[in-house]
Amino acid sequence: MISANDPSRRSWVTIPANSDFTIQNLPFGIFKTAQLTPRAGIAIGEHILDLAAAAELGYFNDLNFDLAVFRATTLNDFIALGRPVWRAVRDRVASLLDAQHTTLQNDAAAQARCLILQSAATMLLPIQIGDYTDFYSSIDHATNMGKMLRDPANALLPNWKHIPVGYHGRASSVVVSGNQFRRPKGQQKPADAEVPVLGPTKLLDFELETAFVIGRSTQLGETVSTAQAEEHIFGMLLFNDWSARDVQGWEYIPLGPFLSKNFCSVVSPWIVTLDALEPFRVAGYTQEPKVLPYLEYTGNCNIDIHLEVAIRPEAASETVVCRSNYKYMYWTMEQQLAHHTCNGCNINVGDLMASGTISGPDEGSFGSMMEITWRGTKPVTMSDGSERKFINDGDTVIVRGYAEKNGVRVGFGECASKVLPAS
Amino acid sequence: MISANDPSRRSWVTIPANSDFTIQNLPFGIFKTAQLTPRAGIAIGEHILDLAAAAELGYFNDLNFDLAVFRATTLNDFIALGRPVWRAVRDRVASLLDAQHTTLQNDAAAQARCLILQSAATMLLPIQIGDYTDFYSSIDHATNMGKMLRDPANALLPNWKHIPVGYHGRASSVVVSGNQFRRPKGQQKPADAEVPVLGPTKLLDFELETAFVIGRSTQLGETVSTAQAEEHIFGMLLFNDWSARDVQGWEYIPLGPFLSKNFCSVVSPWIVTLDALEPFRVAGYTQEPKVLPYLEYTGNCNIDIHLEVAIRPEAASETVVCRSNYKYMYWTMEQQLAHHTCNGCNINVGDLMASGTISGPDEGSFGSMMEITWRGTKPVTMSDGSERKFINDGDTVIVRGYAEKNGVRVGFGECASKVLPAS
Repeated sequence: MISANDPSRRSWVTIPANSDFTIQNLPFGIFKTAQLTPRAGIAIGEHILDLAAAAELGYFNDLNFDLAVFRATTLNDFIALGRPVWRAVRDRVASLLDAQHTTLQNDAAAQARCLILQSAATMLLPIQIGDYTDFYSSIDHATNMGKMLRDPANALLPNWKHIPVGYHGRASSVVVSGNQFRRPKGQQKPADAEVPVLGPTKLLDFELETAFVIGRSTQLGETVSTAQAEEHIFGMLLFNDWSARDVQGWEYIPLGPFLSKNFCSVVSPWIVTLDALEPFRVAGYTQEPKVLPYLEYTGNCNIDIHLEVAIRPEAASETVVCRSNYKYMYWTMEQQLAHHTCNGCNINVGDLMASGTISGPDEGSFGSMMEITWRGTKPVTMSDGSERKFINDGDTVIVRGYAEKNGVRVGFGECASKVLPAS
Repeated sequence: MISANDPSRRSWVTIPANSDFTIQNLPFGIFKTAQLTPRAGIAIGEHILDLAAAAELGYFNDLNFDLAVFRATTLNDFIALGRPVWRAVRDRVASLLDAQHTTLQNDAAAQARCLILQSAATMLLPIQIGDYTDFYSSIDHATNMGKMLRDPANALLPNWKHIPVGYHGRASSVVVSGNQFRRPKGQQKPADAEVPVLGPTKLLDFELETAFVIGRSTQLGETVSTAQAEEHIFGMLLFNDWSARDVQGWEYIPLGPFLSKNFCSVVSPWIVTLDALEPFRVAGYTQEPKVLPYLEYTGNCNIDIHLEVAIRPEAASETVVCRSNYKYMYWTMEQQLAHHTCNGCNINVGDLMASGTISGPDEGSFGSMMEITWRGTKPVTMSDGSERKFINDGDTVIVRGYAEKNGVRVGFGECASKVLPAS
């Protein structure tokens, strides 16, 4: 059997040029339509393969798992079946969609039942998130923030190169791409003010991130080594960790960000499996000083994923304000997970672990407005001539990402979110 | 109809002297026995009223809700039915157990079905926790920590009297009283060391806290005012926020506590409703400077709840090391909830919001070993003559709490947890 990742695979489904959803990708999501209740699907070109319908058509009958998982409102039950099942389903779907195979290709009635146009579907939050953790693992981002907010000469804090620094975020306020939200209010204390005020944030910012989804649970007291980590990861998403910088600056000492980060965090709807990303693995960042043994790893643990952020004003075309890459991450997912569990903290299927803002080394690759405009001192110009220091009401922020190699593209689609005026 | 809280109520069930579980209390929990699957119950004296069995006996038939909620493994579905149902059930159970009422009192067969000895039951985590937030709302605790770790002359940080400071904790590692856990490992950097090490925490500490359980959800973008807050709170629990002080000191800058707090957090099994605590309300702390309007409140928003912490070494009787009180809280639950939602952050039924360590003004009332022994400089002596700077392997830490007034006691039972050696 050829691998689902084989670059020579072609699908009989039309895949537009530069589609993120090639036959080598096959990411999982949850969708509904006017006719169909929420269910699991796999993106292919401009279509979705309806996994619930495909299951009813008998295509997974020999795979020996409870097919009801595809009619659930989240992927959690499917994910909990474990990696052998994820792989078997992805392999089977690769075959069903492969130009060399005729089962579905030659069955128009079956296609009518299980191939849905993405334009006719509404994507839903694909997982029920038990806990959400946000890391801070891009060295360029941490350095930029340290330069701006603390000491340019000692931008990185003493623990940063020893610990994949992270904190707990709010799971309830994670939503799926396509949402709108009102500019949040919060307590702020301008530097020249005697007392704080409550009001709409003036410094609304995005954070370009990715996140990974836990695919295998542990019990309290268990640890996960860097070598075991991949078995516990189902796949990756794009993530926009909306932030209110003025609220953050006032509230975060000494216990970290809170209301500045829990009003809306956005994920892309399709979870790209680690298996699909495997061909794009690259060497990790050189870590100096050497990390403690429990954080050491072998092999290529970074991934070459092009990332970009665009701002689309209410009545203008979009402007790309950042081009970054996941390969700039200092700490890998494997290290993040080993660290997260080194004290016996338990993880659950569906937990979300985000990267932290992914900035690259160059100005054009900074992953937040805070860095791009250097705290508002260097505004960026939109296509309509208007300037942005931070994000305006009416703006839509769109995160995109894809890996590409040997003519094969594996992408994430969009993670888009629109800001409405404060209520 | 007399109120469930009426001090004149007496139960026909024997209530031992100083029982936390009087007929004026009637807290909710989830239990199982060797014979019975997990189900909801109400504590009364040394017994549990099995709500699933009581429902089968028809005692709630006229109350018009889905009785299946009592056969669930958590209280979430029951809580989601709303305050009118919580109240109707508590009122009905007060009647069933009242010495003036004969329905259950005179029915031995029914009693055999629905009254279970607590000693024969295992208590389970009563709620599925979506998100867990920890506040930092005791002024004496915040002042003590500031004096020890920062500047004795400016112990409170500038934001502390303006914001009920809080952070997101980990929901997955919250367990129910009666558990054992291994001393966690973590990265620490002793002051005299060049580089950090990974090892079992040397500074394992408890934190005496309470927590409240969200009883009514909101949508993203909604706010909850201090006046509305009580409608969103189902009840309260005791809480021990186990902390690894050496791990915390090294990891927490700049994003707050993480692995120092997510290896084990313990709740007591019985949720005492806000209704049952109503008679024990007292005036709140005088807040100066004046808080912002969204944090103002009227009425008595603190509660007079005696709290204590005991340490029981492996082979010795317990020693009480702290006697504190919930009334020492600077920020009230109503303010915490109004602040938490002022940016539109959504809350869900079953969310847990903890108080932060509750220290009083006197040395005997400090709520953590960090404060009690003043960072280990003033050890406390156990009943067996051994000393404690922090918590040793084999120690069981027990948090207790009760309110008492007019001869009526409403208590929480125990929140107990034992430390095993690191693995």
